[in-house]
Amino acid sequence: MKFSFKNDYSEGCHPLILQALSTYNLDQQAGYGEDAYSLQAKEYIKEKINNAYADIYFVSGGTQANLIVISSILKPYQCVISASTGHILNNETGAIEATGHKILSIETADGKLRASDIIPVLEGHRNIPHQVMPKMVYISNSTELGTIYTAKELKELSDFCKENNLYLFMDGARMGHGLTSEISDLTLEQVAALTDVFYLGGTKNGALIGEAIIINNQSLQEDFAFNIKQKGALLAKGRLLGIQFLVLMKDDLYFDLARHANRQAMKIKNALKERGVHFLSDTYTNQIFPVISNELIERLSEKFEFYVWKKMDEDFSAIRLITSWNTSDEAINNFIEIINDQLPAIQ
Amino acid sequence: MKFSFKNDYSEGCHPLILQALSTYNLDQQAGYGEDAYSLQAKEYIKEKINNAYADIYFVSGGTQANLIVISSILKPYQCVISASTGHILNNETGAIEATGHKILSIETADGKLRASDIIPVLEGHRNIPHQVMPKMVYISNSTELGTIYTAKELKELSDFCKENNLYLFMDGARMGHGLTSEISDLTLEQVAALTDVFYLGGTKNGALIGEAIIINNQSLQEDFAFNIKQKGALLAKGRLLGIQFLVLMKDDLYFDLARHANRQAMKIKNALKERGVHFLSDTYTNQIFPVISNELIERLSEKFEFYVWKKMDEDFSAIRLITSWNTSDEAINNFIEIINDQLPAIQ
Amino acid sequence: MKFSFKNDYSEGCHPLILQALSTYNLDQQAGYGEDAYSLQAKEYIKEKINNAYADIYFVSGGTQANLIVISSILKPYQCVISASTGHILNNETGAIEATGHKILSIETADGKLRASDIIPVLEGHRNIPHQVMPKMVYISNSTELGTIYTAKELKELSDFCKENNLYLFMDGARMGHGLTSEISDLTLEQVAALTDVFYLGGTKNGALIGEAIIINNQSLQEDFAFNIKQKGALLAKGRLLGIQFLVLMKDDLYFDLARHANRQAMKIKNALKERGVHFLSDTYTNQIFPVISNELIERLSEKFEFYVWKKMDEDFSAIRLITSWNTSDEAINNFIEIINDQLPAIQ
Amino acid sequence: MKFSFKNDYSEGCHPLILQALSTYNLDQQAGYGEDAYSLQAKEYIKEKINNAYADIYFVSGGTQANLIVISSILKPYQCVISASTGHILNNETGAIEATGHKILSIETADGKLRASDIIPVLEGHRNIPHQVMPKMVYISNSTELGTIYTAKELKELSDFCKENNLYLFMDGARMGHGLTSEISDLTLEQVAALTDVFYLGGTKNGALIGEAIIINNQSLQEDFAFNIKQKGALLAKGRLLGIQFLVLMKDDLYFDLARHANRQAMKIKNALKERGVHFLSDTYTNQIFPVISNELIERLSEKFEFYVWKKMDEDFSAIRLITSWNTSDEAINNFIEIINDQLPAIQ
Repeated sequence: MKFSFKNDYSEGCHPLILQALSTYNLDQQAGYGEDAYSLQAKEYIKEKINNAYADIYFVSGGTQANLIVISSILKPYQCVISASTGHILNNETGAIEATGHKILSIETADGKLRASDIIPVLEGHRNIPHQVMPKMVYISNSTELGTIYTAKELKELSDFCKENNLYLFMDGARMGHGLTSEISDLTLEQVAALTDVFYLGGTKNGALIGEAIIINNQSLQEDFAFNIKQKGALLAKGRLLGIQFLVLMKDDLYFDLARHANRQAMKIKNALKERGVHFLSDTYTNQIFPVISNELIERLSEKFEFYVWKKMDEDFSAIRLITSWNTSDEAINNFIEIINDQLPAIQ
Repeated sequence: MKFSFKNDYSEGCHPLILQALSTYNLDQQAGYGEDAYSLQAKEYIKEKINNAYADIYFVSGGTQANLIVISSILKPYQCVISASTGHILNNETGAIEATGHKILSIETADGKLRASDIIPVLEGHRNIPHQVMPKMVYISNSTELGTIYTAKELKELSDFCKENNLYLFMDGARMGHGLTSEISDLTLEQVAALTDVFYLGGTKNGALIGEAIIINNQSLQEDFAFNIKQKGALLAKGRLLGIQFLVLMKDDLYFDLARHANRQAMKIKNALKERGVHFLSDTYTNQIFPVISNELIERLSEKFEFYVWKKMDEDFSAIRLITSWNTSDEAINNFIEIINDQLPAIQ
Repeated sequence: MKFSFKNDYSEGCHPLILQALSTYNLDQQAGYGEDAYSLQAKEYIKEKINNAYADIYFVSGGTQANLIVISSILKPYQCVISASTGHILNNETGAIEATGHKILSIETADGKLRASDIIPVLEGHRNIPHQVMPKMVYISNSTELGTIYTAKELKELSDFCKENNLYLFMDGARMGHGLTSEISDLTLEQVAALTDVFYLGGTKNGALIGEAIIINNQSLQEDFAFNIKQKGALLAKGRLLGIQFLVLMKDDLYFDLARHANRQAMKIKNALKERGVHFLSDTYTNQIFPVISNELIERLSEKFEFYVWKKMDEDFSAIRLITSWNTSDEAINNFIEIINDQLPAIQ
Repeated sequence: MKFSFKNDYSEGCHPLILQALSTYNLDQQAGYGEDAYSLQAKEYIKEKINNAYADIYFVSGGTQANLIVISSILKPYQCVISASTGHILNNETGAIEATGHKILSIETADGKLRASDIIPVLEGHRNIPHQVMPKMVYISNSTELGTIYTAKELKELSDFCKENNLYLFMDGARMGHGLTSEISDLTLEQVAALTDVFYLGGTKNGALIGEAIIINNQSLQEDFAFNIKQKGALLAKGRLLGIQFLVLMKDDLYFDLARHANRQAMKIKNALKERGVHFLSDTYTNQIFPVISNELIERLSEKFEFYVWKKMDEDFSAIRLITSWNTSDEAINNFIEIINDQLPAIQ
């Protein structure tokens, strides 16, 4: 069996989660997220983000979180702005448009949005009422390219959004990886202070399923639960989500798991760099995009699974490697061994 | 702590499910329902329904299943017909309408639809193109009132739908309870043969989450997966659903659990009948609606939780009791003890 | 050629409208409702409703007006309440649901809603967040049954809505007929003061097309034009609508035309009453529903077109007769002549 | 009063239309497009396109036509491809997305789509079911940039669409101008043979309002009328649309009007070319985009209204001039006079 670096959701969940599910299994609890575990998990999150007034909901997955948040906030004629690499644009089967809203796409080099990217879009949408009204900015951290926002960048973007009457929504499917990156200077508390809404992704960081939507802007909190239910996201056994986030949030397991994933990716990154390999983008999270020869790709493919991301020329392609909370040292070492075996050391 | 008869999703899941989740936890598997467990679970279901050509998808919950099925099949101007007690009408926050489709409601005594109920609705919708076009019939088995369809009733309804160019969709959130009712003569194979689409509910029958949508009508199968993804229902770790249905379908655990729930409900029902209590509807599944005095309600409420369903007069109300795969003999006996203690034996 | 009493939109438009279209035809004007005629027509309306702060938009038809108003005001999980005879419920091909919103239907005897009708609906929708949230009341004046609201009734309903945080929206497709009914004590100014939104129907009262949406509640005015455009209702040559309302509003032509239609209907009504005929509902507008024998229906059908509305028994049916701004005395007299010829005078 | 070259819908309608509206005004006719004029107008169109089996509907405007056609044909997960200049993309307030469908945008030099433009989009959407499914190609003729398709180009695109299972939909808001361009070799009959659906725009070519949707592909015709009604586009007095198309189609008035508009634009174009002026795109319809100095723009603005389309550098900008069925020789001559006065003759 080949080891897979295709994504960070190949395995089940962290064993502590299974253990908690077992421990609490036969307790009778209220349904629909009113169980004691969900309530406790929300308290943990409020503490971590230092916002007692946040409104928190657990849902099953990222696409679900995105479509509920966006469709609940925008009026019918309003739209959301996203980097062209944004998950909502190309990887969600038109889920946002299916709720009636256009996504305006912005090309970027690194998957991150800045005020200077957004200004021309706003200026290009002044022909009232013949065009949609931009009202929300969607960003991801870490991004779909593995890059991250610095505290300064997020602050500037947040300020810009406030000045321009735009909501700022951060997709945190890989929030753990973003915040625990060795080069990140951003904290979860800052994320909460600088965004109107964001979510903490569990699925890609050790949970079976689950994303925690956190609504910081109190003007967006009213009646939000109706949206969860209407979109089919309100689990009867909400305890399944509550228990998972209870385990992840307690003692910062969530961040430890992400840090592990990042660290394993960095080991491969460094091994490749030592052999002179270049990367499609310079990332410090659990996604790396090395550009290697077709020959090396072939050799690695004998023992590992991964995506060939982008053909660079006849001989070289960028591949995407993703590590997870469960990626073992053994897998990393085996991978590096092939690299070192195949690529000459730099003099 | 009071014992709850409020619903059949108060507990976690059957222990065999947790055990399987643990056993398979660290295996790497493909995402999005392409894992080995999901594929095997689908094979089991195909065998049980005796239809190798069925198309099967696992999703998280009933509202999600309903909205995906209905919105994927109907054209924008088509609508679905439901009994007024139908879950889609009053208990899903307008989830169906949110996808653009009207639900036509029919009052019934027992929550079941018959051709004679539907004919007037069809006749009342002939003013083309000024009215929506009825195109689907939605039924539940067991129904929201705990009643069930006989094989003959379902056959007649199915024939009627075919003659009238209507799709027949069965909500099976409590399919296990319906089919294992002591008075049911309907088989799962018949359900599959007589409906265009139905689903098997896991959430209310021992799973953590999960409903298995089964598309029998091959003309409705094309591209169905897109709908799952677009509505945010495609879990990255589809294994969570696959493993659960694998356990439930193997050795008919699914039906054993439902049979247990029904049996426990019937114990209470019989105890009440022996004491002369009447019922709002005559059910043989895990939902019963006895009409009892406010005084008895008060006494029972000291030790049990349940819904007061409908006020009958100043002194009496119908309550709803729901049993589950996990309802213990102890809880049943305690309940019956109070009844026997409070209600005089009939001479 | 038979004369038609089937509806009030069988003819073209009042000649003064055609004359104005000709007079202004070759003037160049701004598009999209910014033409001088539209602006002037809006001023006329603001004067008549005595509200300088109303926001006014002209659209092509009633279904369009209904779907734009309702979808622009409600949040995704909110719904609208309507009498079961409401045009939005059965005569608009699910247009409201197609924008994502459920309509809650209330059975009434006369097509009118009162607080006592609405209270049980509100009480039946308290299971948050599992049910849609009622947020708007939709009424028509005159109603689809030809009945009208008194000033007192509308005031009470308006007060009730305010107390219960519900918007009140009046469909005025036949507002002219409602307000000029001989028994009406309601004024247009009162309608504007007591509703959040209403519209003045032109199509059924002498215009070629056109309804004037009037938004009285200033909190609902922001950005409304976007909704008009998004739903395809913003005419490039908005002048077509502006000129028509200019003509209709000037010198109260709008009300004169409606009064004529009502008067012609009353002539037939009185002739029938004198011969002892009963009516399905007691109306004083341009719609009447006499219950007559099949034999008489046959005789009348030789010279007139009308709808047979409802079969009462083997021998009698209610028919619907609608008069218009253009119904001639000759047509009325011919109709009455047959009645008097066929029905014996009462002793 | 300045003369406006801002658009082709500044005036009312061709006098023959007003005359016909007057002639037929008091005839009683069936509503909702079943009037004699609409039926006759459809016959005329069927003859002109040489397709007795086409299905034809008249609606009020272009955005309405676009949203009805697209939403009626696509399944929820399917999307439409458009040139980035397409009217549906930037000028309809998200009308298409509001019906649930994504638009994929393609950058082009001239506003026209070719197979080579579309292939990469199809190839970029193979990640089933995580991406929307491209299912329709939307084009305009003449385009939003005034350019046109040759018969060969349309044939190639049509063949490509058939091979790739894509529907081809042509927006014909300016179809008259496209087909009567001096360089066009495309006929209306060819358009009908090569597209699945198209529409003939009346609003921008001498009608008060009105676009004729023509469904050539018989598999798309079933129940189409429901969509018209549901989107609020079914006029009670459909005669208004029918009479207009009756006049426009009889004796080819439609094409004569467009030819006049084109001819007037070409007069200005040629005058500018003679003085050495360049154009943003080389058009032969009623839209021209000359690049002129700010000084000349200022001089022209004293007597004419037009849009400054695009700033080229500090001193020069492209302006957009649109002529109409009603643009007089006098206006053209006055405009040319200023040009000749301001720009030196080329030696």
